[in-house]
Amino acid sequence: MLSTNEKLARLRGTMKACGADACLIPSSDPHLSEYLPGHWQARSYFSGFTGSAGTLALTDGESALWTDGRYFIQAERQLSGSEIQLMRMAQPGVPTVGAWLADKLQDGQTLALDGQVNSQAFVRSLQKAFGSKNITIKDVDLVTPNWQEGRPAIPASQGYLHPVEYTGLSAAQKLDQVRELLRQKGATSLLVTRLDSAAWLTNLRAADIEYNPFALCYVFVSQDAALLFIDASRLPADVLAMLRDNNIEVRGYGEIRSWLRRNDQAQTILADPASVSYALWQELETNPAFTIVEGEEPVQALKGVKNPTEIASLKNAHQKDGAAMVRFQMELEKRMEAGQRTTECDIAAMLRNVRFVQPACIGESFGTIAAYGGNAAMMHYSAQPATCAVLAKKGFLLVDSGAQYLDGTTDITRTYAMGELTDQEKTWYTLVLKSHIGMARAVFLEGCTGGNLDILARSAVWQHGIDYRCGTGHGVGFLGGVHEGPQNLRITNNVKFVPGMTITDEPGIYEEGQVGIRIENELLCVEKMQTEYGRFFGFEPITYCPIDTAPVVVSMLTDEELTWLNDYHAMVEKTLAPLLNKEEQTWLAAKCAPLTR
Amino acid sequence: MLSTNEKLARLRGTMKACGADACLIPSSDPHLSEYLPGHWQARSYFSGFTGSAGTLALTDGESALWTDGRYFIQAERQLSGSEIQLMRMAQPGVPTVGAWLADKLQDGQTLALDGQVNSQAFVRSLQKAFGSKNITIKDVDLVTPNWQEGRPAIPASQGYLHPVEYTGLSAAQKLDQVRELLRQKGATSLLVTRLDSAAWLTNLRAADIEYNPFALCYVFVSQDAALLFIDASRLPADVLAMLRDNNIEVRGYGEIRSWLRRNDQAQTILADPASVSYALWQELETNPAFTIVEGEEPVQALKGVKNPTEIASLKNAHQKDGAAMVRFQMELEKRMEAGQRTTECDIAAMLRNVRFVQPACIGESFGTIAAYGGNAAMMHYSAQPATCAVLAKKGFLLVDSGAQYLDGTTDITRTYAMGELTDQEKTWYTLVLKSHIGMARAVFLEGCTGGNLDILARSAVWQHGIDYRCGTGHGVGFLGGVHEGPQNLRITNNVKFVPGMTITDEPGIYEEGQVGIRIENELLCVEKMQTEYGRFFGFEPITYCPIDTAPVVVSMLTDEELTWLNDYHAMVEKTLAPLLNKEEQTWLAAKCAPLTR
Repeated sequence: MLSTNEKLARLRGTMKACGADACLIPSSDPHLSEYLPGHWQARSYFSGFTGSAGTLALTDGESALWTDGRYFIQAERQLSGSEIQLMRMAQPGVPTVGAWLADKLQDGQTLALDGQVNSQAFVRSLQKAFGSKNITIKDVDLVTPNWQEGRPAIPASQGYLHPVEYTGLSAAQKLDQVRELLRQKGATSLLVTRLDSAAWLTNLRAADIEYNPFALCYVFVSQDAALLFIDASRLPADVLAMLRDNNIEVRGYGEIRSWLRRNDQAQTILADPASVSYALWQELETNPAFTIVEGEEPVQALKGVKNPTEIASLKNAHQKDGAAMVRFQMELEKRMEAGQRTTECDIAAMLRNVRFVQPACIGESFGTIAAYGGNAAMMHYSAQPATCAVLAKKGFLLVDSGAQYLDGTTDITRTYAMGELTDQEKTWYTLVLKSHIGMARAVFLEGCTGGNLDILARSAVWQHGIDYRCGTGHGVGFLGGVHEGPQNLRITNNVKFVPGMTITDEPGIYEEGQVGIRIENELLCVEKMQTEYGRFFGFEPITYCPIDTAPVVVSMLTDEELTWLNDYHAMVEKTLAPLLNKEEQTWLAAKCAPLTR
Repeated sequence: MLSTNEKLARLRGTMKACGADACLIPSSDPHLSEYLPGHWQARSYFSGFTGSAGTLALTDGESALWTDGRYFIQAERQLSGSEIQLMRMAQPGVPTVGAWLADKLQDGQTLALDGQVNSQAFVRSLQKAFGSKNITIKDVDLVTPNWQEGRPAIPASQGYLHPVEYTGLSAAQKLDQVRELLRQKGATSLLVTRLDSAAWLTNLRAADIEYNPFALCYVFVSQDAALLFIDASRLPADVLAMLRDNNIEVRGYGEIRSWLRRNDQAQTILADPASVSYALWQELETNPAFTIVEGEEPVQALKGVKNPTEIASLKNAHQKDGAAMVRFQMELEKRMEAGQRTTECDIAAMLRNVRFVQPACIGESFGTIAAYGGNAAMMHYSAQPATCAVLAKKGFLLVDSGAQYLDGTTDITRTYAMGELTDQEKTWYTLVLKSHIGMARAVFLEGCTGGNLDILARSAVWQHGIDYRCGTGHGVGFLGGVHEGPQNLRITNNVKFVPGMTITDEPGIYEEGQVGIRIENELLCVEKMQTEYGRFFGFEPITYCPIDTAPVVVSMLTDEELTWLNDYHAMVEKTLAPLLNKEEQTWLAAKCAPLTR
């Protein structure tokens, strides 16, 4: 197997051969996805850094990799020994990839990138960074010829239906919602490239991407037709019948580009530069039959607000998930009491054991993060059999996991006290809990965005000069991606919260080499009250699982925080009881016992 | 004197005579100011509504006035009996003025407005609202011919210097800062239209506008010259000498338009559509020598961050202001104890008595708001001699006031318990205090905006379904306007806080007919700490005046809030003591006594 530096040397060879002076390899696919099939994990292959987010850039003499706060520690380890410089995004003095390239490239030089896996918006941001410097962008695939061990194939798993009993709306009804939005925006048509949007819109699922129940496809919606670009051979009879019933025609996955190029029906296409690749954007722009209206891809906002059927389904899924989490924790406690050797790597299997037996569970929603002690400081730590830690009766174990059910997608983090804790550990844990509750008990006037709300969680840790280098939370799909927008909890988000949106609430404290603490529930945005001042919204937790109270320093909680915690536990106990046996109920009652001063 | 309806009838006559089907009269002047010389108070003259913010629109058959939440109650009263419909801005179902005009006007019709007092950005927003409807905008002054009693003259008070001992920087140094920013933005020149920017940039002051120490003028900055458009006859010798020393040439105030039209020097002008009038923008756009770069007017951001000399000056001004506030409150208490009849109208005079004797005080920074009981529900209530309330020994008196000192501008609100209070009044007061402290004790990571922070104050009242229909706070000028940007505390603000910015913190509760409570300090943004996670900022109160603790329900405060309050009072006592006599010190010590549970 080639070393990272050897792979980069080969890449540079092809880069120069095709006349380019730099190249850029993002973490992306033709659908601008976050989670990628192996076929598109080129950045990981060439850099050796396996985190989910990162961009690699090369010039003749230098190379650098940009990643965000979740991965600083992991990237540092995985890049060590290679020539690649780590760029810690959003840290003081760290240039953006565009600024770095603008600095390294000379006037008249050329940057190579694969136009299929870079969004139009990203390429524009590069061009903006280049400013008056004349840099040519060359759309070329440097990856395939240099993937020494053979690039993995494009996946083509069998499609299946997401039944209307869970989704509440048929594909035809969803398409009509989209058509109405298009008319409002003065457009006739829409090119849907995002896999989460396509899955929600068509009620079609598959298993093309690990943890993400998506089928690689495109959807083209016009006022009188809907085309699904997917290989028909992947679709069983019931899916084909559903598509027919909903007036959705099927074309080949590989035909999208030529179909756009040859289309001669005059139409006004709503297209989002952030979700359409540079390559497809060129097709839209150069076809004289098309007029482009730039705007946000509207399926994202539609599916971001769960309908009543989806909400009922989701609560059911979370109830099952909570019962599984109870069984997991009981099993963990038994093993620790019995002195049975248990490693971080055992945790994922233990969770699968209790989750996969739940009705309608079809798998995990992401790879379980089980991190003990200092390992948990890596937010997205992935335990490896050869190096994973053995659990002991002290410190914290952080477990972040979730599942895909036909009735919903879950995402939960609990941090367990494994035994003795230092005062510092208890203080940190209580600060994270305060942050969590700060968001969970928010009451806010209609119109507030994630950017307005984020500080409600962050404030408790910021008071102590601590930050978590990630959002406070993200949207979650519905039998979809574990990270879905458009809402999220970050200071830069400008999407207004409305009832029916769900969001994770997952503040944390991560001290390198020492500790990682995160407490994550999913929250449902609900209307709290309507007064003369307007409509006030807030959140209802839909994750049903006790939060470890052993580490809580009660004196650090306000009365309101303490009440929230006790109310939450009373609700959890009541919600999970019907799914538990007597022993489990007794165990849960103890975990949910109210705290007092 | 004509009635409102009679005035509108005359306005309609001229409107139709010049071929227009609707007209629009904003609250503005050629500098897009918030506070207006009488000459530009046309909206107030024609509508009868005297609040500081409002827009009047007329069609042949209808008329409407838009104002914001501060003025709903006042506008309702002042418009009653007239034909004008009140439009409560930002309330559900209330159209914007643009949407209203778009609805009322037919395709092919004409809207008349005075291009000198409407910003380019506002006219663009109207055009956007009109959409595909073909509406002509006619730039015409309908006001002057219809101002029955004679339109007030344009003011021309004598200019005076703002000495460098207070400002820290000379005009030449400030001009060089601007030139550097222009170069960074690829521009050579700047048209400064805002009076606050012009005053700060030139260190020139005057008294053209009540409460605002500004001179009506424009400044044109290029890389090698600076032109001040003002009537030279207003400027005494020391001002003329300063301008000469700082290489600033003087041209007539009325010459700006023709000078822009005739200028033939090729240059790239940075211009902000929000701060340049529609009329002047047309000159910039039609002159072939000019290339426009659109962007925020950079003086706003420069002056928004106070330099060390300004900060030291400001603290000195606030210390004097706090001593005056102590004397005012002592006097008020003595009058009430003695049973001396005291009305809302007496308060402003009492405050002037104690403020104007302070060194370097040159006047009030706005008209004192003294509102007793239910009157205080009108956020910007203005007591009138004929109708003002007599103070009694119960309920709340709200006093919002401020002064202009050569060393700074102040703005403070205190709400005093005049005697017996209901439990509801105490609860409301304590909620406002919690909101105030929520912002005052903020600790936040570098990069946060007013939009990120606003909820820290609002959260406490939102939890109870209460809102204040205004921002949490605003910037304050330096011997300038009492409202200056670019920073403010609203959910929509996107200006990042940096050390040196000042902001008011003034949440409130306003229940119509019942109560008005507001607690306002000015806060200075400071660096709190620097950790591995970045730079953390926070606020230091620079208003030194006790907050009435009599109404506080201590059990509603968290430990942190109680500590903040007691620490604040200890600081106030220490800061004011050197300026007070023994009796005042004793009185203050009692007011600043720490609260306990």
